[in-house]
Amino acid sequence: MATERRADVKWQGSLLEGSGTIVSTTSGAIGEQQVSWPARSEDTTGGKTSPEELIAAAHAACYSMALSAGLAKAGTPPDELDTSATVTFQPGEGITKIALTVVGHVPGIDAAAFAEAAAGAKANCPVSKALAAVPEITLDARLA
Amino acid sequence: MATERRADVKWQGSLLEGSGTIVSTTSGAIGEQQVSWPARSEDTTGGKTSPEELIAAAHAACYSMALSAGLAKAGTPPDELDTSATVTFQPGEGITKIALTVVGHVPGIDAAAFAEAAAGAKANCPVSKALAAVPEITLDARLA
Repeated sequence: MATERRADVKWQGSLLEGSGTIVSTTSGAIGEQQVSWPARSEDTTGGKTSPEELIAAAHAACYSMALSAGLAKAGTPPDELDTSATVTFQPGEGITKIALTVVGHVPGIDAAAFAEAAAGAKANCPVSKALAAVPEITLDARLA
Repeated sequence: MATERRADVKWQGSLLEGSGTIVSTTSGAIGEQQVSWPARSEDTTGGKTSPEELIAAAHAACYSMALSAGLAKAGTPPDELDTSATVTFQPGEGITKIALTVVGHVPGIDAAAFAEAAAGAKANCPVSKALAAVPEITLDARLA
């Protein structure tokens, strides 16, 4: 069965001087979140999230789920996966790169089998597929 | 200058019985967030966010920024934009649809010009471009 997840955003003013609020989401889990162009496009976040940070969280979570599924299917479910996603945003150009890293704590697996599972999750996780238009998605996978 | 935004996720166990935590993000704004397969793939969220919900928030925020920029460039900056994004996830298939809606409070603009700006933002916002592989992205735009 398909699920739907929604987010509502209120934006006020122009891009450079205005600002926005993620007012609500289906689960309510992330609460209200302020967003602005400076917080998105400059090195300092001012404690504000951004579209790219939210995509990083989505991708790291989805990748972890896909890899746990693949490892379990191969008979070697993980004890733990420590995953990161780093999204690069170039103003005027867009999202140019996503770098995934994962360190696996996986009993009874060898390095080659883990590398294969990790590459499969990168290719097949639903968020990777949705983000296939991003010019570069890299993966650095290793066992703990 | 390019910016980087990172998220770290810790996953424990298999996909169906295990669970994960979005441990940290660059800004820290969204705090720790629990994720699980049931909370992602079933109608009830259990108060947990999901990859699709985070993508909905990212897309709604990015779209709002792009539309505010386009309207200001056309000489009609918005007072307010009320935007939503709804992401449909079909387990086994992936992210099948994103539905964007926007209601604009824009002084001095007519419906045709608003529709044109709204369509331009859908085509050109960086998150739309990154998500170009999603089979269907719809837009329902109107003035308040």
